[in-house]
Amino acid sequence: MEQKIITLSHGSGGLLSWRLIKELILKYFSDPILKRLEDSAELAVNSKNLAFTTDSYVVNPIFFPGGDIGKLAICGTINDLAMKGAIPQFISFSLIIEEGFSLYELERIIKSASTTAKKAGVRIVCGDTKVVEKGKADKLFITTSGIGRIKKILNKEYIKPGDKVIISGTIGDHGITIMNERLNLNLKGDLTSDCAPLNLVTNRIFTEEFDIHFMRDPTRGGVASALNEAIDGTRLGILIHEEWVPIKPAVKGACEILGLDPLYIANEGKFIAILNSADSERFLHFLKKFSLSRNARIIGEVTDKLSGVWLKTIIGGMRPVLQLEAEGLPRIC
Amino acid sequence: MEQKIITLSHGSGGLLSWRLIKELILKYFSDPILKRLEDSAELAVNSKNLAFTTDSYVVNPIFFPGGDIGKLAICGTINDLAMKGAIPQFISFSLIIEEGFSLYELERIIKSASTTAKKAGVRIVCGDTKVVEKGKADKLFITTSGIGRIKKILNKEYIKPGDKVIISGTIGDHGITIMNERLNLNLKGDLTSDCAPLNLVTNRIFTEEFDIHFMRDPTRGGVASALNEAIDGTRLGILIHEEWVPIKPAVKGACEILGLDPLYIANEGKFIAILNSADSERFLHFLKKFSLSRNARIIGEVTDKLSGVWLKTIIGGMRPVLQLEAEGLPRIC
Repeated sequence: MEQKIITLSHGSGGLLSWRLIKELILKYFSDPILKRLEDSAELAVNSKNLAFTTDSYVVNPIFFPGGDIGKLAICGTINDLAMKGAIPQFISFSLIIEEGFSLYELERIIKSASTTAKKAGVRIVCGDTKVVEKGKADKLFITTSGIGRIKKILNKEYIKPGDKVIISGTIGDHGITIMNERLNLNLKGDLTSDCAPLNLVTNRIFTEEFDIHFMRDPTRGGVASALNEAIDGTRLGILIHEEWVPIKPAVKGACEILGLDPLYIANEGKFIAILNSADSERFLHFLKKFSLSRNARIIGEVTDKLSGVWLKTIIGGMRPVLQLEAEGLPRIC
Repeated sequence: MEQKIITLSHGSGGLLSWRLIKELILKYFSDPILKRLEDSAELAVNSKNLAFTTDSYVVNPIFFPGGDIGKLAICGTINDLAMKGAIPQFISFSLIIEEGFSLYELERIIKSASTTAKKAGVRIVCGDTKVVEKGKADKLFITTSGIGRIKKILNKEYIKPGDKVIISGTIGDHGITIMNERLNLNLKGDLTSDCAPLNLVTNRIFTEEFDIHFMRDPTRGGVASALNEAIDGTRLGILIHEEWVPIKPAVKGACEILGLDPLYIANEGKFIAILNSADSERFLHFLKKFSLSRNARIIGEVTDKLSGVWLKTIIGGMRPVLQLEAEGLPRIC
């Protein structure tokens, strides 16, 4: 490692995060399951396959349009399980609270987490509470872990040329909403986090016969990072058509003002599915039945004619969609 | 709640922690499994029973004689599973790192966690890394969750009058060690944390035929809190004999100097077992075969002649061992 200290970019989900994980953490944590670096670990327990995942949430601000850190922690863990083809079942909930934090706000967050879990049909079954001195944390951090039963086998190795790439709805809503709040940008329009439990849709998907090869929720690093990870280590490429990518006018406007590419902005209630072309229209029709995925669109396809992720722009040019060096804004989740 | 803000005592493991959990958190998180408030949740998965647990670690300092926050996070989660009669199998490992933290120290901690997990035969299978701005966390917080297969059914409801109370070794080592480091007390003698993975002993215990009713690791709040929890909600009492309680001279001396009761000091590599009196001597003999429990002792018995936990002092008096209002020192684990 060149740098001798941790920087914010090490936690961004970009290239520096990957280097930290690959060069330092995997040097010691060498379990073959962990080394796959998937959203959830796949465990053989009692001869059936379980998915197991964990994430810490440090989002700032802790309340934002469309959600709060409690809802986000539940959704994020549900979504990681769902992206592994699992039916999310059990969640653990661990709090690190800064001394002096408001009990009223804590109650709002606990209530929100509880409501979200109930709506999604998952059970919060264990937890922990730690308090640190004032100034030693920032209000509240939450770590959730989750267990689910794997129902559908998904694996990036199944991705093949000709597969279609589907996004379940508009992109960039969460990241731009957090940015607007944090930086007091006072951007107007429909800026609301899309934070939602994806199993409301995926539990239904997994009982149907769709030839889906891979799924990923485009959180930190956005659609660009999720697609780069999908084909990392393969000789395949993905071509995205800019004009097919759904985006709310308010988010598009905000990105233009801020000079940001929406493909790199975080989402918290969207998934990308890469599936057999033959099933793509039927799958799209199925997705449109659910409010969470009613704006689903085919945005591109897998190809062996290109290497890496590419964007065909509205004016017809082609540009590479590279893995991000570092997220622009820390603590978006 | 009388207080409108979170205080350090809410995270102490004492009465205020219990009130926060019972009055606020359980008001919303109402799952029957969570409500048992055990060290691990018991889940029926694929018709077999799994234990599932989580804990956040915020210990200060992060390096201490006998361990560090990485070793502690692995041991703590293993031990919570073990106390539920489970064989610990899988662990998740989530980091919240303060910007500017040393990569060298991070590597030491990751290495230590890895070594501990390997020694204990558990697999670290998933993780997460978040970085927050300088001053928004204190170096490093770790949250681990664990999954284990329940091998031995233990339940406080099985505790009955006449049962013996066994401690697996000397008490107070971890808490006094942390205190000595944090407060720069410069106390001399053998002050080393007992931080250890208890499954090195419990995995063996659970394959034998011992009529054990209940186990608990006396962490925050020490032996006093663990015993109070064991009989909470029952009409039973526990009588502890002070002279039978194993304690290192250095720890005893430190407690005398600081005016602390070692029964309330945290341990991180000890367990309490409450078992059928008929099996107690044979069990003790078994425990002495393992280095982790070679100083195991019977320290008391369950009785229906008393209510609550009582100590028979060395000079022959009797005093109640009450549930602690709040831990004296925050961030011991």
